Order: sequence, then C-alpha cells, then structure tokens
Amino acid sequence: MTTLHARADASIIAADALRHLCAAVLEAAGARAADAAACVKILIDAELMGISTHGAVRVPDYARRLRGGGIDAHALPKLERRAPSLALVDGANALGPVVGLRALEAGLEMARESGIAYVGCRASNHFGAIAPYGRIACEAGFVMLAGTNASTTMPPWGGKALRLGNNPLCVAAPGADGEHFILDMAMSVAARGKIRAALKAGKPIPEGWAADQDGRPTTDPAAALAGLLLPFGAHKGSGLSMAVDLLSGVLSGARFLTDVVSWVDNATEAQGTGHFFLLIDPARLTGREAYAAAMARFRALIKQTPAAEPCAPVLLPGERELARRAQALSHGVELPAALLAELRAQLSAARR
Amino acid sequence: MTTLHARADASIIAADALRHLCAAVLEAAGARAADAAACVKILIDAELMGISTHGAVRVPDYARRLRGGGIDAHALPKLERRAPSLALVDGANALGPVVGLRALEAGLEMARESGIAYVGCRASNHFGAIAPYGRIACEAGFVMLAGTNASTTMPPWGGKALRLGNNPLCVAAPGADGEHFILDMAMSVAARGKIRAALKAGKPIPEGWAADQDGRPTTDPAAALAGLLLPFGAHKGSGLSMAVDLLSGVLSGARFLTDVVSWVDNATEAQGTGHFFLLIDPARLTGREAYAAAMARFRALIKQTPAAEPCAPVLLPGERELARRAQALSHGVELPAALLAELRAQLSAARR
Repeated sequence: MTTLHARADASIIAADALRHLCAAVLEAAGARAADAAACVKILIDAELMGISTHGAVRVPDYARRLRGGGIDAHALPKLERRAPSLALVDGANALGPVVGLRALEAGLEMARESGIAYVGCRASNHFGAIAPYGRIACEAGFVMLAGTNASTTMPPWGGKALRLGNNPLCVAAPGADGEHFILDMAMSVAARGKIRAALKAGKPIPEGWAADQDGRPTTDPAAALAGLLLPFGAHKGSGLSMAVDLLSGVLSGARFLTDVVSWVDNATEAQGTGHFFLLIDPARLTGREAYAAAMARFRALIKQTPAAEPCAPVLLPGERELARRAQALSHGVELPAALLAELRAQLSAARR
Repeated sequence: MTTLHARADASIIAADALRHLCAAVLEAAGARAADAAACVKILIDAELMGISTHGAVRVPDYARRLRGGGIDAHALPKLERRAPSLALVDGANALGPVVGLRALEAGLEMARESGIAYVGCRASNHFGAIAPYGRIACEAGFVMLAGTNASTTMPPWGGKALRLGNNPLCVAAPGADGEHFILDMAMSVAARGKIRAALKAGKPIPEGWAADQDGRPTTDPAAALAGLLLPFGAHKGSGLSMAVDLLSGVLSGARFLTDVVSWVDNATEAQGTGHFFLLIDPARLTGREAYAAAMARFRALIKQTPAAEPCAPVLLPGERELARRAQALSHGVELPAALLAELRAQLSAARR
C-alpha cells in the first residue's frame, strides 16, 4: 500500500480502512453496527468499482439524513412472504442498503428453493448503485434483474415538467471465475454529476442533455440543473424509466413518480422509495454446465469483436468495474482528499 | 365498413377478413389450422395496433419459410417444466408465434398458480412484435416482461462487426378498462425499415443511425443496410441488447448472438431463435384493489404532464397502439393495395 501515485488533491486508502472509516461515520450518526456494515458493503463496493458518484461521497449524505430523522436509524425492515417465490419488504424507512440487502438475501433464499423470486421493497430510501447487489447475486450463482425508482429529474417524452426519476435498471448474470455480466444503467442521457462538473468548469453542456424549467432545450448547466434532464433514446428511455417505476414502485406498494421525496435536498423527510429484485437460478433451467458453457461462448463472441478503435477492445458491461474493484482491493482506492478529510472530521466531531 | 377513405394505393379491409385471408395463406403453405390461427393472432394484432412492419407484411415471409422448410409446419413445441414457476419450451422449429403463444399460455397458467413464472423458448423462429403478447398478458391481469433475440444487425458498443440482434424488450402492466401500459422497444437508433424507406426515396439517413461495413459512420442508406445499425443510447442500448439475449438465448438454451440465423435471407434454414416470458400476478403482491388504484394514479400523473407541444399530449407506452387497434376493429385496417393483392394471389395460386 502506498500513497506515492495519488494525485495532489487525492489520497489512496486501503479498502478495509475506508470501510471502517465510513461504517464508523454512520454509527456515529446513529446507525446500528450491522446497518452501517450493510451500507458500507454497497457504497464502498461501488467506490471500489469506480462508481464514485455512488460511493464514499454518499456517506456524509446518509449520515446527515440519519441525524435529521429523514432515515430512521432504529427501523427494522420487515419481510412479507406472499407466495413461495413472491415477497415484499416494508423498509420502515430504514437505510436504503439495509432494505435492499434484506430483500436481496430473502430473494436469493427463495430462488435457491424454487428457482425464481420477485421481492419488491417499499418505504425505503436511496439504496446506492445497483451493480454491487448484482455482484452479490452473481457470486451466489443467480441471474438478477433489479431496479429502483428515485425522485424526479426528467419529464416523460413529449412533456415539459418533472415526472420521472432516473430509475436505474440492472441486469446481472454470473460468469466463471468472477467474470460476471453486470449492466447497471440509468435513464437520462447524462448524469446530473456531469452537468454539475460543467457548471463548476464554466463550460456549456452538449445539446440534447437537458431542458430548462420551461422545457426549452438548453446548453447552460445552471438552467439544466434547475430544469429537466432528458431521457436517453427519447421515448425509449422515457418508457424504460416508467417500466422500472412500475416494477419498483407500483408492484411493491411504494411511492412512485412525483410522490418519491428527493433525498438530496431534504434531510428530515422519508423518501418512500421502491426497489425490486428478480432472481433466477440458471442451473434450474438448462443445467449448471450448459449455462456455464453458453456464458463462456457469449463472453468470447463479444470480446472477440473487432474494435472500432484498435487500442480500445470491446468490453462486456461490468468488466471494467470488476477489474477496478480487484485493483482497488489489492492496491487501495483513490479518494478526493477533501472527502477523506470530511469523513475523518465527522468522526472526530462525533467522538468529541 | 367502407373503402371511401383509403389512399389511392391502399385498401381498407375488415380485421376479420384480413385474419381469414392471412390464415388461409399460411394453411396453403402447409401450416395446421390452429398454428395459422396463432400466427394471425399475433401478426394481425400488430397490424391493427399500427405496428405494420410486424403485421400482414410478414405473412408472405412466413409462408415462404414454411414452403422452403426453414420452418417445420409439422413441428409440435414441447413444454418442459423445471419447477412450479420455471419452464422451457423446445420450439422444435415451429412457427415463432406458435412457440411464443405456447410459452405465454403456459406462463400464465403457472403464474395463476404460484404468482410468478419464467418461460424460456429455444429452437424457435421470428415470433412477431411483442406488444400483442403483452396485451394478452394484461387482459389476463398479469404484468409481463418479455424479449427475443434476433439475427445480428448491430455491433456491440466499441466494436465494428455484427454481433448483436435488435433484441426487442417488452414490459406490460394491466390497467383498468383495457388501458394497459405496453412498452415494446428494439435496441437500434432506427429500424431497418426506416433505412429501406430512405433508400427507396433516394434520401440520406441522419448521422448516428448506422455505420458502413468497416464500421465508419455513414448517411448512405445502401451502405447502412450492408453495414451496421447502431444501438440507441450508445453503450446503454448495446448493453440492453446483450441483456435481452442473455434472458432469451443463454437462459433458455437457444442460439444467441451470431448463432441466430437470419430469417429474411434464408427460407430453408432453422433460425434457432430464443424468447423469454416473465409473468407476475400483481394481485398476489399488494392486492387487486391497491394495484388498480396505484396504476390509475400512475397513468393520471403521466397523462397530466404539461405537454411540450400543446397539440401533442403526453402518451403512455401502448396508448396510441391500443387506440389504433380499437379503431381498426370497428372501422377496418388500411393495407397497401400491393400487399393485399400479393396475399390474394398466393391464396389463389395455392388453390389452383
């Protein structure tokens, strides 16, 4: 472990040290140890995978919402079995990753029994990126479809007011030797983080990313942030966002569309977020060996595609993230120095 | 019923008359009556919904493949139960809609029992648009996710050779009074049909639709048709196409990626297409009334979105298609006169 290669404004920290630090910050904000560990399992795995928008940077946000009462530190999510392969989780306004992992673990147990499971979650909160849940499902040998709704950032196609969340969808399928397929995608052309970065850099954003408050196309990042992100693929991204909300929100009895409360701007109010997990045991369909052989051929066919840019070979979804994770586990993860300082300051303030 | 409003090169025909004509063409090509009826149920429903690229125009193609032996007119698809909520269908190279409807009906029966079902299909053929299957699932009260793989038309993102099919995905959820949510979307920026239309009109295609055989961006429709369609949303459409192929092809034991045989160019060879159907009973989760109330609120929130263009109200996926279907059922459906003539000619040739 070394900090020699970190950028001037960054530090390198071992994955375990980062986990301990972040768990301690969440515990200091009132989370039970097991719940803090669940959050760290999801958030720091995203950080290791290079999904830094959903990594350690969220820990201070989660802590603020715990302290503000927006998240109930004492909540115990409750599993409601509806059928051998169907369940709902009442999140009871617990930390999102606590609700999500409860649902995923229940779903895996049900799918081990019956080969398939749907688990919907209601009364939850922001539950992090979905790729880390996908990795857990793949490590257990299961195919996973999962999604979540979110507070509104987009209009439906043809509309000019906020109605849709960025509602990410994840499809994950286990590969041999940890080489899993993990697609985790949100529904806007560009993430808000990229628009915030343009604002900070004083640069315009490309056409097609966003519209202003009145629904007029804009390249001004400030107008975009106060306005509407646009769905990718026009009506297709808009329709997919609705589909994910139906599976996460409507089916689970959670809030949906404009009823989901923003978590960024509001530390005191429950979000009422909905998630879903669908798990399938591929070994119960074509058998373990036939599935493994098919996945190996699938990966090979994609990876052997002639590349458009000779120096940029074709990758499978999740391939870059899993490689980054392996690298971060052995060599540590680079974090903005300011974020690391903030996490440490929160901890010492709480201990004072 | 009247033909007064048909365009000069079009005729209006009653839905039932079109169904009878198309079924007769398929029977004349060797299909059993029940199998011809299954094809018509899917293809003509797509036609009524305005999805004319997947409507009556496909009937002569199906008939040609029946006569050429590419589709086995005598095949009997076989259901293989794997678990109470899991099954596979060996399509045995039957007509695609015969395989698809067998799987959908088995899935609905399983989901009625257990609340959820996954059915994967292998050794199938082109099975039409997915929206008609979605409407059937919704009429039965079930949420449906379904997809199919297809012969290759796209490169994976970052690649410059054909590896991916346009692999459509459908998400459908029942609404009250037949007002269902039916999203049915393929993964390319533009359909091949639009590029063929540009070629016919002697017009260039927009940038971003396609690349030539060497992977270079092109606006020449001929070069595009000989080359590569591009996935919508760049890496997102590419990843979704792979995800649909995993669920339709890899999980079901079907062919996938480059192994699926093109059906347009080849009347004598089995395609080996894979499909999947996932069905969930919403009444088993939150209860029938809570689900209906949530769907009604979901629809209202979307439909009440202020429109970007005052004369173009925001629509839900499937809304336009279901309205067209109702209209076509009462007033008939407009078909190109040449297509109607071709269908009638095929029938009289067979009867001679």
